[in-house]
Amino acid sequence: MKTIGIADTTFARYDMGASAIDELNRTGTGFRIVRSTVPGFKDLPVACKKLIEEQHCDICIALAMPGPKEKDKMCAHEASTGLIQCQLLTNTHILEVFVHEDEAKDEAELAYLADMRAREHAINAYDLLFRPERLTRNAGKGLRQGFRDAGPVRQTK
Amino acid sequence: MKTIGIADTTFARYDMGASAIDELNRTGTGFRIVRSTVPGFKDLPVACKKLIEEQHCDICIALAMPGPKEKDKMCAHEASTGLIQCQLLTNTHILEVFVHEDEAKDEAELAYLADMRAREHAINAYDLLFRPERLTRNAGKGLRQGFRDAGPVRQTK
Amino acid sequence: MKTIGIADTTFARYDMGASAIDELNRTGTGFRIVRSTVPGFKDLPVACKKLIEEQHCDICIALAMPGPKEKDKMCAHEASTGLIQCQLLTNTHILEVFVHEDEAKDEAELAYLADMRAREHAINAYDLLFRPERLTRNAGKGLRQGFRDAGPVRQTK
Amino acid sequence: MKTIGIADTTFARYDMGASAIDELNRTGTGFRIVRSTVPGFKDLPVACKKLIEEQHCDICIALAMPGPKEKDKMCAHEASTGLIQCQLLTNTHILEVFVHEDEAKDEAELAYLADMRAREHAINAYDLLFRPERLTRNAGKGLRQGFRDAGPVRQTK
Amino acid sequence: MKTIGIADTTFARYDMGASAIDELNRTGTGFRIVRSTVPGFKDLPVACKKLIEEQHCDICIALAMPGPKEKDKMCAHEASTGLIQCQLLTNTHILEVFVHEDEAKDEAELAYLADMRAREHAINAYDLLFRPERLTRNAGKGLRQGFRDAGPVRQTK
Repeated sequence: MKTIGIADTTFARYDMGASAIDELNRTGTGFRIVRSTVPGFKDLPVACKKLIEEQHCDICIALAMPGPKEKDKMCAHEASTGLIQCQLLTNTHILEVFVHEDEAKDEAELAYLADMRAREHAINAYDLLFRPERLTRNAGKGLRQGFRDAGPVRQTK
Repeated sequence: MKTIGIADTTFARYDMGASAIDELNRTGTGFRIVRSTVPGFKDLPVACKKLIEEQHCDICIALAMPGPKEKDKMCAHEASTGLIQCQLLTNTHILEVFVHEDEAKDEAELAYLADMRAREHAINAYDLLFRPERLTRNAGKGLRQGFRDAGPVRQTK
Repeated sequence: MKTIGIADTTFARYDMGASAIDELNRTGTGFRIVRSTVPGFKDLPVACKKLIEEQHCDICIALAMPGPKEKDKMCAHEASTGLIQCQLLTNTHILEVFVHEDEAKDEAELAYLADMRAREHAINAYDLLFRPERLTRNAGKGLRQGFRDAGPVRQTK
Repeated sequence: MKTIGIADTTFARYDMGASAIDELNRTGTGFRIVRSTVPGFKDLPVACKKLIEEQHCDICIALAMPGPKEKDKMCAHEASTGLIQCQLLTNTHILEVFVHEDEAKDEAELAYLADMRAREHAINAYDLLFRPERLTRNAGKGLRQGFRDAGPVRQTK
Repeated sequence: MKTIGIADTTFARYDMGASAIDELNRTGTGFRIVRSTVPGFKDLPVACKKLIEEQHCDICIALAMPGPKEKDKMCAHEASTGLIQCQLLTNTHILEVFVHEDEAKDEAELAYLADMRAREHAINAYDLLFRPERLTRNAGKGLRQGFRDAGPVRQTK
């Protein structure tokens, strides 16, 4: 039995954690889920560290929705740096699922994007844990989460 | 009995530490408070590390008021990075309560904001320590500290 | 028998991992290859850490193709920082092979560049592992991977 | 007997280390001083690490004068990040006393600023070591080092 | 007998490693030199870590020539951050000798600058190892490597 950690925030304007949990449960079995909700996305790195080391999670999904201001971009950068550091300290994958408020043109699209990106990364987490060969088959395919895939480069030979 | 660490600065132009301590005492019992005041906000990461490892704090609140200049933004970034690193090294939450001088339109609003953000994060610290399920109930609700909540995204289904 | 790790992504729009593996096999023998494919390039640092510590790789090649936006540049910066940190924690070289989408004028050139840079760095990995004196002979020669070498500075004596 | 480390550079255009040492000796007793001078300010983090771990310093003061160019700002950022990291690794305060060349309008003011900031932070170091309650009494008072204090925010109640 | 590590790159357009080695040999005795050449300057941090921990170097000189583009500046920043981190992990000085291509007005000046900066930092490395008091005598003197010294601030008393 594997353990998947879900770390999310009260700052986000959409319940991305619920989307990820729902999608994981649709995708497969053989795991249990532990969730930790923190105030803001800068609290996510240590939340994941605790999920991994105190709750024995085998992988984490860190979900957040940074605001549109310059200051928010810097905070997101700090959180990302911490999430990478946390992974290096624990030898454990943490999938960062950040949706920037200014990625969407209105609130409906923002909700759609937050839901979809959380769901697609939930499947990525499942794949990393249970079927990594599925990722290798898609190496270099230009996959994206939330919006349309970019696809592989068109070559003229 | 839990221990809550308060780290603040002589650089800040409002006694945010006092606000946090007052709010903690209004919120609940079952903890003691240890305070460490340092000159500037770049001294906060090690102050928290010492609160956690030498004073056995179970959680910290780091309060500061960076100035409005570009150089201040960079210093705040360095302090934030250090606070995240400190959390990863200690598996302990540190709530960063930074109020940027240029977030407020005048000194009265700045004082109001500093007081309110310190108080709301004091409650977050209490929740993380004593009632984390309260945070999970608010996941994705668009909560903010100091100013009005952004609220959840309005969806049209 | 040495082990070479290949870490790549489903985000990239060209199968750079396949190019690196093909070139390694053309260059020499005495090694086996282990491959790990992850969703995005921010997942590469921990992927390499696991290749080194769990799969016993003696060197890694981390291949990715960041997009052209400002946000992509920041993500690439975070991934690079993590890759350097990973090397310091493991005393193991990881050659970063990043091709930025905006380095090429069209998709055909992008594919060419991705293929060539992966191949030339595959040879660098081989050299670091089996014939480091070849690199020292080229010290200060202005070598580049993918595009034309810059060459040494022309001096007027 | 406590030990105070002084780390400074040959790059700085004012002997800030001498100012700090002079002020420490005017402020109190019960400590000895160890000094390490390095070429540039990026050499300060490891200089402090060695002062702390090899010379058993209980606190350090790191003094430097970054130049006015964009490149100098980036170098100062790297040095600051390293100083914070060093503090976290050693649980020891390092007071960063950086004077940026463009903070002053001419060389006379630059010398004045370098001297004053070094002296005021020397007192901060003494306080952290021998009388921390003095800092807590000044929490939120808007203190500055070198130039005039900003003072606490004026509130209208 | 001390050991001095020289880490340089095939990316640089001038053989700065050779200049540093030549100058060290002119400056004194009592040391041996170990050299490690890597492809690019982002490979320098781990190269130095290996020189220190596997080749037992007592100090390192890391030489590189970043290009003139914005992307090169970011890469140099990442390498610098890694070099500082490496020093903190090993308690060993690494002198960073980076010459940015756009510091010189033409290729002849670039070669001159690369040669001179490598030589002057080679002497700094020798001083740190064998005669640190020479650096302290020059504290605050505004020394520069490669171009003319800035000199100490002129004071009017």
